[in-house]
Amino acid sequence: MTTLETPGPTIGVVGGGQLGRMLAEAAAPLGVELVVLDPTPDCPAAPVARDQIVADFDDEAGVRELAARTDVLTFEIELADQEALDRVSEDSGTPVHPKPSTLETIHDKLVQKRTLRDEGIPVPPFREVTDADDVHEAIDDYGAPVMLKARTGGYDGRGNVPVETKADAEDALESVAGPAMVESFVNFEREISVIAVKGDDEIAAFPVGENVHEDEILRETIVPAGSSDAVTDRARDVAAHVLEVMDGRGVYGIELFETSEAPPASEASSGRSQRDGDILLNEIAPRPHNSGHWTIEGAESSQFEQHVRAVLGWPLGATDLRAPTVSVNLLGDVEEPRDAALRGVDRILETPGANLHWYGKRQARPLRKMGHVTLTGRDEASTDDLLETARELEDAVTFRP
Amino acid sequence: MTTLETPGPTIGVVGGGQLGRMLAEAAAPLGVELVVLDPTPDCPAAPVARDQIVADFDDEAGVRELAARTDVLTFEIELADQEALDRVSEDSGTPVHPKPSTLETIHDKLVQKRTLRDEGIPVPPFREVTDADDVHEAIDDYGAPVMLKARTGGYDGRGNVPVETKADAEDALESVAGPAMVESFVNFEREISVIAVKGDDEIAAFPVGENVHEDEILRETIVPAGSSDAVTDRARDVAAHVLEVMDGRGVYGIELFETSEAPPASEASSGRSQRDGDILLNEIAPRPHNSGHWTIEGAESSQFEQHVRAVLGWPLGATDLRAPTVSVNLLGDVEEPRDAALRGVDRILETPGANLHWYGKRQARPLRKMGHVTLTGRDEASTDDLLETARELEDAVTFRP
Repeated sequence: MTTLETPGPTIGVVGGGQLGRMLAEAAAPLGVELVVLDPTPDCPAAPVARDQIVADFDDEAGVRELAARTDVLTFEIELADQEALDRVSEDSGTPVHPKPSTLETIHDKLVQKRTLRDEGIPVPPFREVTDADDVHEAIDDYGAPVMLKARTGGYDGRGNVPVETKADAEDALESVAGPAMVESFVNFEREISVIAVKGDDEIAAFPVGENVHEDEILRETIVPAGSSDAVTDRARDVAAHVLEVMDGRGVYGIELFETSEAPPASEASSGRSQRDGDILLNEIAPRPHNSGHWTIEGAESSQFEQHVRAVLGWPLGATDLRAPTVSVNLLGDVEEPRDAALRGVDRILETPGANLHWYGKRQARPLRKMGHVTLTGRDEASTDDLLETARELEDAVTFRP
Repeated sequence: MTTLETPGPTIGVVGGGQLGRMLAEAAAPLGVELVVLDPTPDCPAAPVARDQIVADFDDEAGVRELAARTDVLTFEIELADQEALDRVSEDSGTPVHPKPSTLETIHDKLVQKRTLRDEGIPVPPFREVTDADDVHEAIDDYGAPVMLKARTGGYDGRGNVPVETKADAEDALESVAGPAMVESFVNFEREISVIAVKGDDEIAAFPVGENVHEDEILRETIVPAGSSDAVTDRARDVAAHVLEVMDGRGVYGIELFETSEAPPASEASSGRSQRDGDILLNEIAPRPHNSGHWTIEGAESSQFEQHVRAVLGWPLGATDLRAPTVSVNLLGDVEEPRDAALRGVDRILETPGANLHWYGKRQARPLRKMGHVTLTGRDEASTDDLLETARELEDAVTFRP
């Protein structure tokens, strides 16, 4: 039986970026407090959290202090050090959710894909590559282009390099600069994601969202996705299967491809039998995910509230859609880093159904995620109309002087 | 043109109770920070606010420090000292919203009623009383019962005493223990309220809510109210009129009576011509109000976000209803003060559409406001059904061991 008290339970979070900030915002109404560990003094989560420990994500002494001051540990970045978390948790008795072993599985994209494939979860063809010859062979087998990926450390498209021809393999490997893998380039109809939650003996999933990426950075999420019911059912089935493989409670962001029919030539050369409307797993994040920010206003409970509930072992909340919803990221549209000042937000503030989220980062940098806008539907608004309005709102603001 | 920056604007709030806490929760996504002034160390707003100044509400040195550290001052309790705020604002150049003169008008209920009546706003018959003879005369003129009210310092029904017969006048005056007024007892059909916002050259109002009080403490708010369209239009007109009288930007909680036809005997004795469905002003709070907590989930923007926008001079947000909504207060159901521990919250956490708000008070006391639950409608839910479920949720929890 859950009891609310003052002071309430405290969650220790490795990482204090925008995810930590929105986690703190969601925790406050429930009387739950956060202490975040982040190397940047006064990190985005700091103003809302109870306190910040200024330390590197893998600073074991810092993580020990975090564990000593909190009831449960979690993380909002994959850069958390799974071994340090495991040792600290064992020594302190403070549980970690999701389990550090899950972080270990996910951290190395090659290990992630192998684990998922071995569990029967549909993934695009992939292989480890160590040199240009390996990449050439992959192109022979999968057809060009292929996607070269850094096995660790990549995010927001960093470390993902499309290889169009064999001649590009050397340069691509050089830019990835470390252990790498190659994936067949998926001829997708749309990119979708499922924000799923693993609770204490229960799971939940939000409605499927459709994602628009540009330069491999998420720009927009549209809910509900334009997929057929059969496809969204299949996506949710895959998400449920993924949760079975993952160890530990929490929110998981599960990025998927909905495939389109492959062009005949490519089909012939690759030998693939990619069917229209198939679901292939792209990537998993063991934490709240950018493509789930829409849940704050668009769903009965947000992904952040769900993560709070899950890591504490509380009952999960309802995940139903409240209204068709679109979110657009506000990225740094600057050439060089500069003090963060987003101009022209009046239009966003004045638009009914629009909600502005500011992440509190001191500096705008090229394509850095600085905030987002969520637009929820009114009356009979279509997601197309919402998306059009959301894009207009995003176009109306700038970090440029 | 509004610009978002890091650090964003900081609001200094006199008072750090639950209203300050929910104000901080609403400010965070907009990059707006709060510093609160409150005499209770680690007050409810402290965990979410940037900082707390521990000082009495009327401690001028504390208010000076608050002004020095913030861009605009506001208050979440009427106990703020209007003269100190005026002096500090003048000396520091930090504006105060609403204006301290508004606080002065509202602080003394007799002054409040006179001001509103003189402006043509409909109020129940009232008069100043200094002794039992005055109360007797009021009973002769208005008919029994009458409501005896402390002119200052009363809230949550404290300082309001119904006087049933002339023989009760002495005791009632003694319990009020200070300057008092008497009001005709309004034979109301329902109590309603309008949460209205005065912005920079614009005003806004949320849909009319219906309030259920018990022992003069708000228990439930139901939106939309059961009133006719004509009555809700009239209520919003009165609210707009009230905003004209008030000086300074911010949210105002405007409590109204919707009258029912007075019984003939009372009518004859009092000479009133109270018509069915008339609107009479009960009380004004120059701040977010308990009867507006439903706006967090039930409206396009919350009363707290609106207060943040208003005091900063930003554009106001949309006030439309997202779905029929009911909020119920979680009051201390204890006989004696005890450590705050609310048992049995699982049912609330598990109910779709229910949102739990915990105020972070250390101690539960008899009838103290400890939190609230908001239930938003799904599909075709009626407010009657919502209210029934909300009451069940409230019944399922207890502060008793």
